[in-house]
Amino acid sequence: MCQLLGMNCNVPTDIVFSFTGFATRGGLTDEHKDGWGIAFFEGAGVRLFVDHESAVASPVASLIKSYPIKSKNVISHIRKATQGQVALENCHPFVRELWGRYWVFAHNGDLKNFSPALNGPFRPVGNTDSELAFCYLLQQLREQFGDTPPTTDALRSTLAALTSDIAAHGVFNMMLSDGSALYAHCSTRLHYIVRQYPFAQAKLSDEDLTVDFSEVTTPNDRVAVIVTEPLTTNEAWQAFSAGELKVFVEGAPLN
Amino acid sequence: MCQLLGMNCNVPTDIVFSFTGFATRGGLTDEHKDGWGIAFFEGAGVRLFVDHESAVASPVASLIKSYPIKSKNVISHIRKATQGQVALENCHPFVRELWGRYWVFAHNGDLKNFSPALNGPFRPVGNTDSELAFCYLLQQLREQFGDTPPTTDALRSTLAALTSDIAAHGVFNMMLSDGSALYAHCSTRLHYIVRQYPFAQAKLSDEDLTVDFSEVTTPNDRVAVIVTEPLTTNEAWQAFSAGELKVFVEGAPLN
Repeated sequence: MCQLLGMNCNVPTDIVFSFTGFATRGGLTDEHKDGWGIAFFEGAGVRLFVDHESAVASPVASLIKSYPIKSKNVISHIRKATQGQVALENCHPFVRELWGRYWVFAHNGDLKNFSPALNGPFRPVGNTDSELAFCYLLQQLREQFGDTPPTTDALRSTLAALTSDIAAHGVFNMMLSDGSALYAHCSTRLHYIVRQYPFAQAKLSDEDLTVDFSEVTTPNDRVAVIVTEPLTTNEAWQAFSAGELKVFVEGAPLN
Repeated sequence: MCQLLGMNCNVPTDIVFSFTGFATRGGLTDEHKDGWGIAFFEGAGVRLFVDHESAVASPVASLIKSYPIKSKNVISHIRKATQGQVALENCHPFVRELWGRYWVFAHNGDLKNFSPALNGPFRPVGNTDSELAFCYLLQQLREQFGDTPPTTDALRSTLAALTSDIAAHGVFNMMLSDGSALYAHCSTRLHYIVRQYPFAQAKLSDEDLTVDFSEVTTPNDRVAVIVTEPLTTNEAWQAFSAGELKVFVEGAPLN
């Protein structure tokens, strides 16, 4: 199995603190050592870093931990291979373009007997069930909405149906973002927290590291962090329900 | 205008030496300071690094210069903005998927009155003439060959016609790769060299750096480097003719 980390904010925020704890699970405090990746939206653009080395050993991960890239939407993934060999093309997140926007996707879980027909322009490059599911999702969105991007609400209800269909094939914890919203679906394990004023201290579970967010934020900042397993020991993480799709916009879940 | 650097090899090779000289032009020995990018194929996967900082100042460029990523096909670009603002989504190279392969594209030049109809799945995210040309190229390839990838020869003749049409709108020096071949089209300035046994010393034009390739290669290695302006002072770079499309496979140009 793999682990997922997502961040959705109302102002560009760096993910150094959360990524530092998360990356530790890539080979040190946990066994997810078969590659990792992280994608940052910056405006309409995306920076994607993927590596088939473990997140603990990777020089690229060291860069992420020391270089504060600010973003409103981030998705990261550490991998323990279940389907597909350890290779760069199988590292999440995956990126495709639809409606003149980049879409970023990462998945935790394992799908069985999942072989949807791909008739359109989205085809997997690697050989994971995850990239196949991503291509299928985008194909279905394009089939349903044509060349016109839908509203977030319309997208939400379509994605709820699609993710539920896919989850019938196995575990489908996933994160998807087009840079304006972050969609997170939980099959089995996913947690989130919203950090906002008044900000407090947070202590990482995986490393001896504490940050006082009140020193690095303004009162208007709001940051949602979504992750497989809670990252800190002294904050109140909310668990998703099984089968739940949440949409995060401007640092908070939509009702 | 911008500058382009490409590498095509018969064995995975690092580009640290060439990139070090090239990156110097991104703000130090030349004026190309409006962002830069580099894409490496690794198997079927792609690592893409883009930054809107100059290649001289960018911490990501420092990583590339110190971390020898080995690849058979690399495309890099340093940008001086002519169309489109300085933003991440306008940084080359651009990446899209077609036929279950990633395609990497970078362009040097400026196209006028170029507004082809995009009816298909490839749409620009940013607002450069370059990304528009890339989307148009992929759309035409898909229209011509359908869902079945053509041979390199068939692709070559189609690309020769398409690049010639686009070049009627202005300067269109470009590089395109699907990880198996590197296609380079010259409107105005492009040079290449093939390094092979017996390997010799090479001295960078832009930095006081010399490398003895005989110390870091085997007799079977072959590396083609393609670049806007020659990178070294003591090697015999070949200039492309205006309007020429060359295809590099396994470290050498096809006849």
